[in-house]
Amino acid sequence: MIVNYRLGWIKNLRVQKEVTFADVSDGSCPQRLQIVIPKSIKPKTLTTGSSVSVAGILTKGPRGQLELVAENIDVLGECVVADGYPFNPRTTYVPEYLRQYLHFRSRTNYISAILRVRNSVTKHIHDYFASKQFLNVHTPILTSNDCEGAGEVFKVQPENEQVIKAMMQEGKNNDTVYFGTKTYLTVSGQLHLEAICRSMGNVYTLGPTFRAENSRSRLHLSEFYMLEAELAFCDSLKELQDVIEDFIKFIFTKTFASNIDDLHIIDGENSKIPKWIDKDFIVLSYDEANKILMKKGFNQSVEEGINKEQELAIVDYCDGIPVFIIRWPKTLKSFYMKDTKDDSTKVEALDLLTPITGEVVGGSLREDDYRKLQLKLPSDRLKWYLDLRKFGNIPTGGFGLGLERLMQVLCGVNNIKDTLPFPRWPHNCDM
Amino acid sequence: MIVNYRLGWIKNLRVQKEVTFADVSDGSCPQRLQIVIPKSIKPKTLTTGSSVSVAGILTKGPRGQLELVAENIDVLGECVVADGYPFNPRTTYVPEYLRQYLHFRSRTNYISAILRVRNSVTKHIHDYFASKQFLNVHTPILTSNDCEGAGEVFKVQPENEQVIKAMMQEGKNNDTVYFGTKTYLTVSGQLHLEAICRSMGNVYTLGPTFRAENSRSRLHLSEFYMLEAELAFCDSLKELQDVIEDFIKFIFTKTFASNIDDLHIIDGENSKIPKWIDKDFIVLSYDEANKILMKKGFNQSVEEGINKEQELAIVDYCDGIPVFIIRWPKTLKSFYMKDTKDDSTKVEALDLLTPITGEVVGGSLREDDYRKLQLKLPSDRLKWYLDLRKFGNIPTGGFGLGLERLMQVLCGVNNIKDTLPFPRWPHNCDM
Repeated sequence: MIVNYRLGWIKNLRVQKEVTFADVSDGSCPQRLQIVIPKSIKPKTLTTGSSVSVAGILTKGPRGQLELVAENIDVLGECVVADGYPFNPRTTYVPEYLRQYLHFRSRTNYISAILRVRNSVTKHIHDYFASKQFLNVHTPILTSNDCEGAGEVFKVQPENEQVIKAMMQEGKNNDTVYFGTKTYLTVSGQLHLEAICRSMGNVYTLGPTFRAENSRSRLHLSEFYMLEAELAFCDSLKELQDVIEDFIKFIFTKTFASNIDDLHIIDGENSKIPKWIDKDFIVLSYDEANKILMKKGFNQSVEEGINKEQELAIVDYCDGIPVFIIRWPKTLKSFYMKDTKDDSTKVEALDLLTPITGEVVGGSLREDDYRKLQLKLPSDRLKWYLDLRKFGNIPTGGFGLGLERLMQVLCGVNNIKDTLPFPRWPHNCDM
Repeated sequence: MIVNYRLGWIKNLRVQKEVTFADVSDGSCPQRLQIVIPKSIKPKTLTTGSSVSVAGILTKGPRGQLELVAENIDVLGECVVADGYPFNPRTTYVPEYLRQYLHFRSRTNYISAILRVRNSVTKHIHDYFASKQFLNVHTPILTSNDCEGAGEVFKVQPENEQVIKAMMQEGKNNDTVYFGTKTYLTVSGQLHLEAICRSMGNVYTLGPTFRAENSRSRLHLSEFYMLEAELAFCDSLKELQDVIEDFIKFIFTKTFASNIDDLHIIDGENSKIPKWIDKDFIVLSYDEANKILMKKGFNQSVEEGINKEQELAIVDYCDGIPVFIIRWPKTLKSFYMKDTKDDSTKVEALDLLTPITGEVVGGSLREDDYRKLQLKLPSDRLKWYLDLRKFGNIPTGGFGLGLERLMQVLCGVNNIKDTLPFPRWPHNCDM
């Protein structure tokens, strides 16, 4: 039976005397279909990268694999390097080169495999939290809070002068006229999650988050996806650690099952699920981590925190097993974190460190004492957040995980800019 | 056996001589658990809205329902109206009142039911597209395109003066210094989806989208969620219509199965799946729709498009069945839409109209002819989009659906601001 296929893109061509063999991909999986094209019907414009539809007969090839013997083949879209197409056939390019062509780079094996993994990881995240009865909450992108107080936020205002003019009132300026207050892109949905958590129980959100940092490292983006979860009635850091550990092992197990061929394309044929998958994550207090760093020759001061090099040294010391650093000095962490019971200089906070990226998760118990939080509140604009502790309050704890960093660890991708389709970083917001 | 429950919030109290009956909700579902509290252990601070943990024995009550007979009950967080809590017990408030307290309103039956439905709809959307092998693509929020060309965009720049100073270069200003170009919040992920579609096949995205309009209607938000899908090798509007119709029926069927009790809370006990669920959606050309409007007494001019009142009149004429309006005048639609074959004044575009909201979906076949698109291109910044047609091009079509409007139709919610946890609209960006 002759079947018409709206097929895909030519990945590879082997021209022989009587027939041409073409490997075709529809992009949905790393596997390709071989098409056998008799010389008599081979279009002149058939090149690597061109899109085709084929009418033909599906048969089994000599080694048992499916192949399509073409009776007719149409080139839907040509792809000519001489016309400016930036990728030559049978050529592998470094990621830096591919990043110049964000609109084309998903045509490469490397980036398409990463985007399929990202699709799966996203699905596994939603599946995990649905199975645990967490409510998916769409926290807002626009906010009048400057949550973390770091000042590294993007400011938002209308572009259209007519809109600004029509809405202008006394005492307002271009920054404040539209919403009535200065408005920023979110740096975290946590405070909003806490509000919903205090009426609906366990909640999570997965969505874009922003930092206006002047940082061009292999670990930073101006726009990135963050998974944040808030656990109702959570009053121990251990409970939070258990959820994080279980979640990360779930994502690794599921993704190595769903996308092993993609992971091989990205990180080499030997890529396999990490050895820590069956082990307990390691737990160190901040003070213990410091002692390890001093032993390793770092000249560590308790006030300075742990930098990236030191994070990776700790993971190395732990033989590559993910490690929770808990009980942090209050001065290094955010206002909303709960004091530890036995040491008023410390808070019930955690970072999870992994190979490749160092910190991939940050979390804490939240200060749930109205008066203590009142003293720490950085801004009057957060009175609503304080009031959550005044009425029907419960203890909660939660964490935030950078999706792109998780992708780096999972796939073995060195530069975070290759873990998402359209990365944004300083001086780069193409398309 | 006595069990300790970290429970939830008191929804209702009935104090009798010897015992108090308390209805408690943990927020995960609309059902409540009745707690029987002997007079001797009833805390003085137990009020509606307070949070409790209970130790007790689960038994069957007189009518067979589960109830918890308390042996001990602790009030975790008090909730005293006199201290400023805005909701009185046994009082129903209008949505406008609740909107003043976004951080508390998820404690009401109405809003919590809507947020549970939103959680389910989101899950059903991902399930639908996963089952059809569409790739979930995270299109960017920040973009240097002003896609639709309407000018109703938000502009983004760093807030921090030090960041701006450190990055400043000649020829740049505060608007352009960070990314090198003016940067906006996305109005649509379509152009980015088309790039990925042209290498990986069918794709979709679900995420926040922005309009800097000065519109305060019951149908507009400054920040809203949009579902966008792009179909590879799609060359007929009918194919697009079939996917949209199948998708919408899937969402309604699944959500009425998963959340019927929530839907009853939101839209009344008689709320049921619409009668059109087993019928074909109606299809009208733009010209036919105009004739209907003229018959109904609207003084319609072909150049003006169809306004909200007219949209709802057409749906009414169609007996409340969703109706596709297809083949629109080119002048009313975007540059990227494909010309119809037999009428050069028309494009292969569709709107889907429903009760309550009118337009809920917009879609089109995309212009895939390089030269035709080149003539229509509104900006040099979109050369990358044009080049998608130059190399390995395929025909595609796609649609965008406003999640909040779908929620309005599904739940029977009159004002769009009540379909999401933290609505943003002109003069309103609280929290």
